[in-house]
Amino acid sequence: MKSGLSFLVAARRSEISELQQLALNCALVDATGRLIHALQRERGLSNLYLGSGGTGFTTERPLQARETDRCATQLRALFDRLDTEASLAGHSARLFSRIAWVLQGLDALPRLRECVDTLAWTPARATRAYVRLIAGLLGTVFEAADSAGDPGLSRLLVALFNLMQGKEYAGRERASGVLLFASACERTSEQQRLLHFIDAQERCLRVFAEFAPNKVLPAWHEAQDPSTLAPLERLRRILCTATPGVPLDEQHSAEWFGTATQRMDALRRVEEQLGAELLAGCDARIRAAEAELAILEKQTTPPSDVGDLLAFFEDNASASADTPDQPYNPSLQRSTLELLREQSSRLQSMSDELSTVRSSLNERKLIERAKGLLMARRNMGEEEAHKTLRQMAMNQKRRLVDVADALLTSADLLPSPKA
Amino acid sequence: MKSGLSFLVAARRSEISELQQLALNCALVDATGRLIHALQRERGLSNLYLGSGGTGFTTERPLQARETDRCATQLRALFDRLDTEASLAGHSARLFSRIAWVLQGLDALPRLRECVDTLAWTPARATRAYVRLIAGLLGTVFEAADSAGDPGLSRLLVALFNLMQGKEYAGRERASGVLLFASACERTSEQQRLLHFIDAQERCLRVFAEFAPNKVLPAWHEAQDPSTLAPLERLRRILCTATPGVPLDEQHSAEWFGTATQRMDALRRVEEQLGAELLAGCDARIRAAEAELAILEKQTTPPSDVGDLLAFFEDNASASADTPDQPYNPSLQRSTLELLREQSSRLQSMSDELSTVRSSLNERKLIERAKGLLMARRNMGEEEAHKTLRQMAMNQKRRLVDVADALLTSADLLPSPKA
Repeated sequence: MKSGLSFLVAARRSEISELQQLALNCALVDATGRLIHALQRERGLSNLYLGSGGTGFTTERPLQARETDRCATQLRALFDRLDTEASLAGHSARLFSRIAWVLQGLDALPRLRECVDTLAWTPARATRAYVRLIAGLLGTVFEAADSAGDPGLSRLLVALFNLMQGKEYAGRERASGVLLFASACERTSEQQRLLHFIDAQERCLRVFAEFAPNKVLPAWHEAQDPSTLAPLERLRRILCTATPGVPLDEQHSAEWFGTATQRMDALRRVEEQLGAELLAGCDARIRAAEAELAILEKQTTPPSDVGDLLAFFEDNASASADTPDQPYNPSLQRSTLELLREQSSRLQSMSDELSTVRSSLNERKLIERAKGLLMARRNMGEEEAHKTLRQMAMNQKRRLVDVADALLTSADLLPSPKA
Repeated sequence: MKSGLSFLVAARRSEISELQQLALNCALVDATGRLIHALQRERGLSNLYLGSGGTGFTTERPLQARETDRCATQLRALFDRLDTEASLAGHSARLFSRIAWVLQGLDALPRLRECVDTLAWTPARATRAYVRLIAGLLGTVFEAADSAGDPGLSRLLVALFNLMQGKEYAGRERASGVLLFASACERTSEQQRLLHFIDAQERCLRVFAEFAPNKVLPAWHEAQDPSTLAPLERLRRILCTATPGVPLDEQHSAEWFGTATQRMDALRRVEEQLGAELLAGCDARIRAAEAELAILEKQTTPPSDVGDLLAFFEDNASASADTPDQPYNPSLQRSTLELLREQSSRLQSMSDELSTVRSSLNERKLIERAKGLLMARRNMGEEEAHKTLRQMAMNQKRRLVDVADALLTSADLLPSPKA
C-alpha cells in the first residue's frame, strides 16, 4: 500500500504538471498579445482607409495585414502544440471552446478584409467586426488567467489581462476619435462612447497597476509620462467638447491617430515585459518545485516510534505556522508529520492568496456579464449599460460589482426586449 | 493546422476525462463515509469502555475495531488506484496532501487503541483523537466536493459533505452526552459543548436538505421522524438542564447511547443512498457526454460559404440562448458557429450554476477557518469561538459568513495568544 509520503510526492508532482501546463498557457497569452496588437493596428488602418474613401493608406494596410497573418500563424502553431488528446488540467474545456471560437474568427478574417477593400462596410461596422475578433482573443487570455493555481503567477496574469483589456479600450477610443474627426457619425452618441472607453480603460489600468510587479513599473511610468499624456488629453478635450454639426479641424485627425497610437505602443511595451516576467516566473517556479520534489523523493519514511505516531493526535498539529523559529533546512531528515504540516499550511496560504487574486478577475467577469444582460434585455449600447450600472451603484451606495451581482441574480425578473 | 471543430472535440474530451476523475473521487467519498461510520462507532464504544473502567463492552469494541480496519483497507485500496503518476486534474495537489495526512492518522490508529486498552487516556482525550482522524477524512471529502466541475454533481457532493459533517456533529453530541451521564466532567462547560454540537449539526443538515435530491428525501424524512426525534429531544433536555453537581440517572445513559446511535444509523442510510445517487449521476453524465462526443466527431467541417464565415462578426452571435424555438436535433449537420454558440452558452450556464453551489462550500470553509483563528489567537474552545462569531453576526446584523470573512481579512490585527 502506498504510504503517506508517496502521496506527498504525488501532490508535488501534480503541482509541477500544473505549472508546466500554465507555462504553455503563458506562451499562448504572449502570442495572443502580439496578434491582438497587430489586429488593433489593422483595425486603425482599415478605419483610415475607409474614412479616406479608399484612397489613403493603400500601402500600409496590406503590409499590416501580412504582419497580422504572421502573428496568427504563430499563435495557431501554439494551439497545435496544446495536447488536445491528453486529459488536461482544470478549465481546459472552457479554454478549448474559446480557442475554437477564435479559430472561427481567424478563418473569417480574409472575408472581413474583402468587405473593407471594396468599401462595402462603413468604418463603424468594420470596427465592430475587429472588436469582436479581438474580444474572442481576450477571452482565451481570460481563461488562461483563471486557470493559474499559483498565487504569484496568478497576480501577474491578472495584471496582464487587465493591461490587455485596457489597451483594447485605448484602441477603441482611437477608432472612436477617428470617427469623430471624420464627422460621419452621430456626434453626441459617439462622444458618449469615447467617454466610456476612456473610463473603462482607466478602470482596467488601475487594476493592472495594483497587481503589476516592480520590474515593469519603469515601462509603465514611461507610458504614463506627462509628455505623452498631455497631447492626448488636449485632443480628448477637443473631441469631447465639439459641438454637434460643427466640423472638426481635419488637421487634428492625423495628430489624434498618431498620439493614440503612441500610447498604445507604449502600453504594448509594458505588456511585452510583463509577458517575459510571467514566463520567467513560471520557469523559476517549476525549477524550485522540481528541486523540492528531488529532496522529498530522497526522504525515506522515518522509523515511526510510538511517540511520533501519536503526535498525529496532538491538538497543536495545525499550529505549524506558529512554530518555525528554527531555520529551514530541507536537507535534514524530517518526520512525515512535519512535512505534512508544512505542505498543508503552504497549500492553505496559497489557496487563501489565490482567492483574493481571483476575486478581482471574477469582479470583471460579473460586471461584463451584467452589462451584456442589460444590452440584450434592455436594448442598450455598451456605454449606456455601463452608465446604468454605475448610476445604480451610486444611488445605492454600493460597489459596482455588488450591483452587477444583484442584477445577474434577478435576471429572470428583467423584461425581455421589446420585439 | 487544427480546426475550430477539433478544439470543440477536445473541449468535450477534456470534460469527459474530468468526469471520469470525478467518478473515482466519488468512489473515494463513498468508502470514506463507510470508514467514518465505523470510526464513529469505535469512538462511541471506546468511550463506554473507558467510562466503565475497562469492564464493559470488552467484546463489542474489538469486533468494531476489526470492522474499522476492514473499511480502512478498502479505502487504502482505492487510494492506491488513484493514478498518482499521471498529471491529474485541478485540485489534486490538495487532495493528495489530505490523503497523506489521513494515511498518517490511520497508521497511528493501533497506538490510539493501545492507549484506550490500557486505560491510559481519559474518555475526553480518546474522543479528541478519534475526532481528529475523522476530521482528516472529512477533509478529503471536502476536496473531492470542491473539485467537481459539473453543477448537478457538485450539488450532490455539497449535500453529501454537509450530511457527513452533520452526522459527525451528531457523533460528537453522542460522545458529549456519554461524558455528561458519566458525570466525570466539568458539567456546565460540557453542556455548552453539547448545545454547540446540536446547533452545528442542525446548520449542516439544513444545507444538506437544501441541496438534497428528491430520491433521498424518503430516507431523510424517516431520519427526521418524530418517533426517533422525540426520545432524543427528551434526553437532550435532561442533559442540558441538569444541575451541576447533581448526578444523572445512570439508567438514562444506555438509553441516550441507543437513541443517538439510532439517529446516526438513520443518517448513515441517507448517506448511502446519496452516495449511490452520486455514482449513478457520474455514470449517466459520462455516457451522455460520450454520446455527444460521438456525434461531434462524425461532424465534418461544413463547406464555408462567405455568408457563413461573416456570421462570426454579427452582433447577435451571443444571443444563442434566445434563439432556439426549433427542436434540438443532434443528428442534423450544423454549422461550426452554431455548435460553438451552443457549447459556449452551455459552459457559461454550467459555470454560473457552479459558482452558486461552490459558494455554499466556501461559506463553510470560511466559517471553519474563522473559528480556527479565534481558537488559536484567543485561546477559545470550538464552541466558544462559534458563539463569538454568531454573537458578532447578530450584533452587526450581518450573515455569519460575512463576519467570518471580515475576521479573516483582519487576522493580522488580532492579538497573539497570551503566552
